[in-house]
Amino acid sequence: MDAYEDLQQATLHDIPRSECLQLLGVARVGRIVFADDEGPVALPVNFRMDGESVLFRVSPASEMCLRLNEAKVSFQVDRLDDFHQTGWSVLVRGTSSYVESEDLPVLRSTRPLPWARGFRPVYVRVQPTQISGRRLVDD
Amino acid sequence: MDAYEDLQQATLHDIPRSECLQLLGVARVGRIVFADDEGPVALPVNFRMDGESVLFRVSPASEMCLRLNEAKVSFQVDRLDDFHQTGWSVLVRGTSSYVESEDLPVLRSTRPLPWARGFRPVYVRVQPTQISGRRLVDD
Repeated sequence: MDAYEDLQQATLHDIPRSECLQLLGVARVGRIVFADDEGPVALPVNFRMDGESVLFRVSPASEMCLRLNEAKVSFQVDRLDDFHQTGWSVLVRGTSSYVESEDLPVLRSTRPLPWARGFRPVYVRVQPTQISGRRLVDD
Repeated sequence: MDAYEDLQQATLHDIPRSECLQLLGVARVGRIVFADDEGPVALPVNFRMDGESVLFRVSPASEMCLRLNEAKVSFQVDRLDDFHQTGWSVLVRGTSSYVESEDLPVLRSTRPLPWARGFRPVYVRVQPTQISGRRLVDD
């Protein structure tokens, strides 16, 4: 045990589901977590919530796209403060699938708009089976 | 195709391996990406680099700990700017394993020190098989 172990001030607290959804609702970027033949990976994508599901867009030419059709995935969002060593994270576990045009949000301005240039016409939805979050509080 | 699709200004560029290592060297928090029975997940942990491998600490009582012994994992670090819609991300793919005391960095101050209170005596190393990164540049 290190001598300065005592300096740790922060405690982990669970975030209630309703608050997880609030945090997801205002976040604009997260990480899609999926598996390919080499194992699990996480890649940042910008997203929007559609009710309780996560919506983002991918290129049909990407390896990621191939792996997101009816797959077990997670979507992870956090805000972490290096300096204060505090922060929160939310994890959505569920199933990803391609979204048909008629199942997209009617209001176009509420759909995700990719930050990066390029052709990303495939909408992917993560339908949650579990939403959980933790906050590291300096008490 | 949305009319305001044209507003996208940013382009994705690969980050050279040497620069990925520099970014990992100054970062203090990232996400360990592993799989349990329900699929892939990502959880934030604070970490330190030890040469080209990632080092962090976990609780022996955690589900995560159980899943990190000789497992295929990734470690993901990013810095993303919601407002400017730019940022970078680095992905380390490799194998995780528990670290014996004698294989820890000699200098204690270079070892990772958990932010959260709690007993986390198990050091985990991610030995990379692949390190890659991407930067979203507003050009």
